[in-house]
Amino acid sequence: VRGLLDFSIYLDLSDEVKIAWKIQRDMAERGHTLADVKQAIASRRPDFEAYIDPQKAHADVVIQILPTNLITNDTERKVLRVRLIQRSDVKGLEPAYLFDQGSTISWIPCGTKLTCSYPGIKLFSGPDSWCGQPASVLEIDGQFDRLEEIAYIENHLSSINTKFYGELTQLLLKNPDYPGSNSGTGLLQIIVGLKMRATFEQSMTIE
Amino acid sequence: VRGLLDFSIYLDLSDEVKIAWKIQRDMAERGHTLADVKQAIASRRPDFEAYIDPQKAHADVVIQILPTNLITNDTERKVLRVRLIQRSDVKGLEPAYLFDQGSTISWIPCGTKLTCSYPGIKLFSGPDSWCGQPASVLEIDGQFDRLEEIAYIENHLSSINTKFYGELTQLLLKNPDYPGSNSGTGLLQIIVGLKMRATFEQSMTIE
Repeated sequence: VRGLLDFSIYLDLSDEVKIAWKIQRDMAERGHTLADVKQAIASRRPDFEAYIDPQKAHADVVIQILPTNLITNDTERKVLRVRLIQRSDVKGLEPAYLFDQGSTISWIPCGTKLTCSYPGIKLFSGPDSWCGQPASVLEIDGQFDRLEEIAYIENHLSSINTKFYGELTQLLLKNPDYPGSNSGTGLLQIIVGLKMRATFEQSMTIE
Repeated sequence: VRGLLDFSIYLDLSDEVKIAWKIQRDMAERGHTLADVKQAIASRRPDFEAYIDPQKAHADVVIQILPTNLITNDTERKVLRVRLIQRSDVKGLEPAYLFDQGSTISWIPCGTKLTCSYPGIKLFSGPDSWCGQPASVLEIDGQFDRLEEIAYIENHLSSINTKFYGELTQLLLKNPDYPGSNSGTGLLQIIVGLKMRATFEQSMTIE
């Protein structure tokens, strides 16, 4: 089946975040106990490890959801560090990056250009590897306060497959109430969407 | 006397580097013992602390020479981390920065654009403070192999008071044999020179 896919995405949720989310949904919303939640995750682990997890080595891009590095010993898991891992050897997929292609950059945006309340925001971009293959990473840790200010971030991003300057910011502003719109989860999902569109349009041109 | 200065520079040599340099010069070149070297530094310390060190709070820019962070437990002190500290409240002095003004950026340049042998190079730029006053820092840790490739670094530097694109690289290439020309010591000294020139030319215009 894998050969039929033009573009594949794997969502890689870290255990810390998975458990925090399940506790939030199953305990707060469905009335389960903490023991129920941990039991439910444990019972699915063998199937997960046999059938789901191995898929991540074959994905063109991976979105990883990790605990933040901005808060020491964070247990709330409300602030997330989201990584977009882009395989380097996928034809037609140009990895998105910050400032300068091939460089390893960590960036705390200027506080007067991007309003951020505690714990702020930190971005990262650079070469890395994924399951033994070369990859490019774009990471966003933390969150921002005003969606319209994301034009400032967009201005320093390249290879995001927008059709006009500011399209990323416009897409984000279309659905300001979506969960994650003010953090890496929303922003990196939109970038993946733009890359899917580019792959789709490329495949249409070839046919 | 301080009021007569249009532009003031303080060279802030860390003790680790000072001792390593003195050992190199006084032991290897002048035949002194390690005890002599340590004694010479110790005997000057009271005067240094009374008259020299307090000047650093009044300098417009400070060049700090520190041990590298690129080698764990480095004792050779051949690789240096050089910081240019630029006071924010000095009229007419626009601080040099990397990529985006006001941002805090750490940058490992792309290895295909800048050739660096071990331990490589890492740059930093961002707001900071100096003796209780706001300041901007530009830091270069490590060294590069080919002077002509510095055009790539220059391309991502702003507010360096050059008169034409590439002037920084040209100035560096004029004296390739100067000690420190392939590291932050030479590069940041040239930037300070360009800022001195700008201050001089401004003061000429005003008179």
